[in-house]
Amino acid sequence: MSNVIEALVAALGSKVRTGAEIPIRNHADASGLPPVSPKALILPDTTEDVSTVLRICHDHEQPIVIQGGLTGLAGGARPEAGEIALSLERMTGVEEIDAASATLTALAGTPLVVVQQAAEEAGLLCGVDLGARGSCTIGGNVATNAGGNQVLRYGMTRRNTLGLEAVLADGTVVRSLNKMLKNNAGYDWTQLLIGSEGTLGVITRVVLGLYPKPLGVQTALCAVGNFEDALILLRQIQQVHPGRLLVFEAMWREFMIVATEICGLPPAFEADHDVTLLIEADMGEEPAGSEAFSSLLSTYYEQGLIRDAVVAQSQADRNRFWAYRETPYEYGRFLPEEIRFDVSVPLNRMTEAVEHLRRNMRVHWPDAVYVVFGHVADSNIHINVAIDKMDEDLKKAVQKLVYDLVSGLGGSISAEHGIGRIKRPYLSLTRTAPELELMRAMKQTLDPKGILNPGRVL
Amino acid sequence: MSNVIEALVAALGSKVRTGAEIPIRNHADASGLPPVSPKALILPDTTEDVSTVLRICHDHEQPIVIQGGLTGLAGGARPEAGEIALSLERMTGVEEIDAASATLTALAGTPLVVVQQAAEEAGLLCGVDLGARGSCTIGGNVATNAGGNQVLRYGMTRRNTLGLEAVLADGTVVRSLNKMLKNNAGYDWTQLLIGSEGTLGVITRVVLGLYPKPLGVQTALCAVGNFEDALILLRQIQQVHPGRLLVFEAMWREFMIVATEICGLPPAFEADHDVTLLIEADMGEEPAGSEAFSSLLSTYYEQGLIRDAVVAQSQADRNRFWAYRETPYEYGRFLPEEIRFDVSVPLNRMTEAVEHLRRNMRVHWPDAVYVVFGHVADSNIHINVAIDKMDEDLKKAVQKLVYDLVSGLGGSISAEHGIGRIKRPYLSLTRTAPELELMRAMKQTLDPKGILNPGRVL
Repeated sequence: MSNVIEALVAALGSKVRTGAEIPIRNHADASGLPPVSPKALILPDTTEDVSTVLRICHDHEQPIVIQGGLTGLAGGARPEAGEIALSLERMTGVEEIDAASATLTALAGTPLVVVQQAAEEAGLLCGVDLGARGSCTIGGNVATNAGGNQVLRYGMTRRNTLGLEAVLADGTVVRSLNKMLKNNAGYDWTQLLIGSEGTLGVITRVVLGLYPKPLGVQTALCAVGNFEDALILLRQIQQVHPGRLLVFEAMWREFMIVATEICGLPPAFEADHDVTLLIEADMGEEPAGSEAFSSLLSTYYEQGLIRDAVVAQSQADRNRFWAYRETPYEYGRFLPEEIRFDVSVPLNRMTEAVEHLRRNMRVHWPDAVYVVFGHVADSNIHINVAIDKMDEDLKKAVQKLVYDLVSGLGGSISAEHGIGRIKRPYLSLTRTAPELELMRAMKQTLDPKGILNPGRVL
Repeated sequence: MSNVIEALVAALGSKVRTGAEIPIRNHADASGLPPVSPKALILPDTTEDVSTVLRICHDHEQPIVIQGGLTGLAGGARPEAGEIALSLERMTGVEEIDAASATLTALAGTPLVVVQQAAEEAGLLCGVDLGARGSCTIGGNVATNAGGNQVLRYGMTRRNTLGLEAVLADGTVVRSLNKMLKNNAGYDWTQLLIGSEGTLGVITRVVLGLYPKPLGVQTALCAVGNFEDALILLRQIQQVHPGRLLVFEAMWREFMIVATEICGLPPAFEADHDVTLLIEADMGEEPAGSEAFSSLLSTYYEQGLIRDAVVAQSQADRNRFWAYRETPYEYGRFLPEEIRFDVSVPLNRMTEAVEHLRRNMRVHWPDAVYVVFGHVADSNIHINVAIDKMDEDLKKAVQKLVYDLVSGLGGSISAEHGIGRIKRPYLSLTRTAPELELMRAMKQTLDPKGILNPGRVL
């Protein structure tokens, strides 16, 4: 047993696991990178435990990988050989809901769904929501500045985060469990930790701002002639009904073809359309809510902005509409191996981006199956490309195509999934040398021995 | 002429002013600190000029004070003897409005009102707004993370800022003129500069996210029985009409008494009430907008939540309602010298804070005139205290009372005005030692020679 493990066991006893005591789940995250057993797994119960772990690892220059719900797609939480895994899974629980201030304080390892339920029981809403809600943790959401489907209404996790407690690389505990929307007292160091993917500190507690609960959510599928019309529709709804739009997801033609012809869903509309939108809005209590929603969509249909639309009349309809948007979760059953991109593109260059992609796919890989879809109100699109007999060279060629395209249009190679280990080689495509140098300076200051999630992000 | 001035003149010629060439306006800001002539005033035209200035001053270890619109209340832009003033006043202009992306790019020295007008001409709205809009600059707004009256709807300046260009202490230009709501590609270094009050870098360009323009703003004065009722009203309106509330300003009893008995405004209501609210909401196009607003307020009046209310029927009414909220600008004409506080308090402790203040004022300074008012939806209140024959000791005693009160309730000594020079001695009241150490580490990393706004914030 190495010195550092001895020191950790002496301080933390059975909270330190080694060898076969380490569950398989802690060997990997959701990135698809092959599992690796960490040198040890540590399961702290308190912030003080985390501080002890970091102090000891700092003294021994022992690299650590920080684990939350292990749902990350960028390889940030998958151990590397020789790393010690620090899992926050036992630090779970909502500690306070302050209904007057509309805030919630939770331990970092609390699953997002538990946070959401606690907010709901207090008659409020947690603005952070994403597909992995059942497994991902609120600490992981903050560490990766998670996005999701409702960012256009409630913002990224950054905007929902009012306060943090975190442990720095040397074991120092920094605490600003701020509940206020306004606090300009010195540098807001919490902003530095949000989205730093565990490379600058370990988040142990989170204070979130909450929202009033929607009174009645309406759902529709709408077909529009092109992306420009989708944008006009977005801005009009936002102006006429400010604050009501929750979801505005675009699915381009190829996506809907895969959904129907490959995944077997019934066609959403009689005709083909270049862009299909999944729209949700909090239109208020029934029956006024559904009447207002239908009347809104009718107006745009009469104006020709919407080519076709169906409005959900039941939860079954709603599920049926969401099924299109969720077909990518099923692609593994129908398609050859895919490469998945999570990029953002300025909205005024979006059509150009899609056209450029189509042209290049036609020329280089005419047999590829590719789809474009995503949270366009936030400028975030996902691109999935599936090609038979994918090998490393082919993968690299497709990545080069997409990343060059995105960086050429002033976009970003990661809109919401983060950089982790997988996208690290491409970071310089959307960040300049002075920016990278500034990031390295921050890392050097906060983690001079490079023990926190080394090799991730930078 | 010192070496550094010689070097600056050699590089920048007539952009460097010394002695009597320096206008009196550059000797002070709006904090009330006595004017001091800087060693030189530099008026860069471009980011490259700013980079040249910083490189030379860095080489010479020459301290710099950064000046925007000089409207800051915390003394951050008032020169200290021996400092060179770097004013961004010539770097002005909106460079791009991208209506599809709903973004605006401006040089840092652009007055806020010019930014607002440019957004409006494009049919959009700039979410940053504050009283000093005619003089303050967008770069200063970002550097101080400015707040204002509409934060509850559009957020602090941080939330409105999508991208930045800045010059670091050694002259390095960092640029991330990001237009996208989502960009998780590496650390978001812009967050570190936002609200750092010019101590970590000089902001030269800003990309703002814009909003759809409100279709019809309604205004009302409402009396409520206590602050708890005000909060219930706030949450109810936010739930029933999400996204419509723009302004929700509270004025406590003492404030309304000063407005009527000292400043000479007519009483707003027949009876006295503990809290008067100034409410504005974007209720949509007329006549439906004003009908919906009146009906909303009637409902709460019938429920007893609102004790009395008047709704503006004209711009004249609106001005008349705002006149109450704006009486503090007139206090200088009627009251002895004031101490003004810009603090925040968690909403669930707000009543306690006001009661504690009242009790202590009664005991210690029964003849003092004091008022409490502010942007309560954001947990931000302003407290003004006027006492005859104010001297330094008395000032310190009142400051101690208010700051102890705020820090004891988990509040902040600066909600929106920043720390600057004036509040620096009190920063440790709302920040712990590890937080301050972390802030100092960031300062040391980004400005190792301490040339940028030295003595401000830290």
